[in-house]
Amino acid sequence: MQTLAPYILTHFRLCPFSRSIRLSLAELGLEPVLVEEPFWEWRPAFLGLNPSGELPVLQLPDHVTLAGVYAISEFLAEEPQLPGAARGLELLPRTREDRAEARRLIDWFQHKFDREVSRDLLNEKVYRRLRDGNAAPPDTELMRAIRANLRYHIGYIGFLADQRRWLAGDDMTFADLAAAAQLSSLDYLGEVPWNDYPAAKAWYVRLKSRKSFRPLLADRIPGFAPAPDYANLDF
Amino acid sequence: MQTLAPYILTHFRLCPFSRSIRLSLAELGLEPVLVEEPFWEWRPAFLGLNPSGELPVLQLPDHVTLAGVYAISEFLAEEPQLPGAARGLELLPRTREDRAEARRLIDWFQHKFDREVSRDLLNEKVYRRLRDGNAAPPDTELMRAIRANLRYHIGYIGFLADQRRWLAGDDMTFADLAAAAQLSSLDYLGEVPWNDYPAAKAWYVRLKSRKSFRPLLADRIPGFAPAPDYANLDF
Repeated sequence: MQTLAPYILTHFRLCPFSRSIRLSLAELGLEPVLVEEPFWEWRPAFLGLNPSGELPVLQLPDHVTLAGVYAISEFLAEEPQLPGAARGLELLPRTREDRAEARRLIDWFQHKFDREVSRDLLNEKVYRRLRDGNAAPPDTELMRAIRANLRYHIGYIGFLADQRRWLAGDDMTFADLAAAAQLSSLDYLGEVPWNDYPAAKAWYVRLKSRKSFRPLLADRIPGFAPAPDYANLDF
Repeated sequence: MQTLAPYILTHFRLCPFSRSIRLSLAELGLEPVLVEEPFWEWRPAFLGLNPSGELPVLQLPDHVTLAGVYAISEFLAEEPQLPGAARGLELLPRTREDRAEARRLIDWFQHKFDREVSRDLLNEKVYRRLRDGNAAPPDTELMRAIRANLRYHIGYIGFLADQRRWLAGDDMTFADLAAAAQLSSLDYLGEVPWNDYPAAKAWYVRLKSRKSFRPLLADRIPGFAPAPDYANLDF
């Protein structure tokens, strides 16, 4: 009997891109070996795995390396039934038009949201301290701008969630996982004003209650306690 | 006889994302109607087309709207022979592993390069002036950092071009078009130190000499004269 080599995911616990792939793999019933990478150290061994220095990286049982969330998510979407996967999952919709709509939203949350909110927020509150041991408080002016941006983005999720069952349409897609992954990282830091956005909150509660979300809710970063409601399903 | 409705591409002449799609459509033998959008004005009509406010947007003959370079490029890659296209083109390679490698590089040039080089550079030298009529010179410190980053990225293109015929392997893919589009925008501004990177230059010369590149080389932005060698194939 041959055993399948494991899927190996190189990630960081609070990295939203890594989280979107952890969610996807969990939805497929795959349990990758997780290897945590302090990507801010630019370790040569990690740059050998992904020269861009970006997370996550997925190594497949056949030793193919998928570098970055774009390559990984499209790979997973192309073959819903992966070796070793307990179940299939369509990460992208079936029709080309619906796929284009899902990709519009994936782009939004992986890039626009990242650029306008989470990259700077995680840097101010987490990465800067991990990198430099610099305990200087976050820049007040910058945090104000980021939080205003965040409200605009949650408002947009609420707008979509008001009209559709899932962000891109009738079915859950990678757009939901990408958006929820971004928000979950900020939720760990207590930064999401859920109560002002009931439709967005209802959408997030549905995702947060899924089995695939549990490992994320169990994450703890030493030195950074999660917000009180982070793992609470009734918040 | 029915005539096909036109492809309509909403773009901006110096926008690297728009340019990567203009190149792709030209390679397919499609001549879209070009509509130029001053995206920095956040016009409500444009936000109706793409709520993220990002370029480009492609409207298909059947009136499907594809918003953003990710949705457009994957759509074009999924069906190499589009209605009205003079020829097919495989924007992504045939095997899943090769597609993952192409997507790793597309991600690199559409996002990492954009974040570390072209977004700020275009903003400092072009968009800020178009938006505010602000003729203050670019920030010297920032420009120095951007130019150092640019050298790192061209070095990486040279590294790839030294080992492979095209950036992602034996065949031209969207990774080449995405990278060349980014560099062409900076080349308009005379910012690319080609002569220090002969392998990268040789790769770019091959792309610049293609028929699909000609419309880009004919672009002129009022108030911003192109660098002397911008349209020169022997530079």
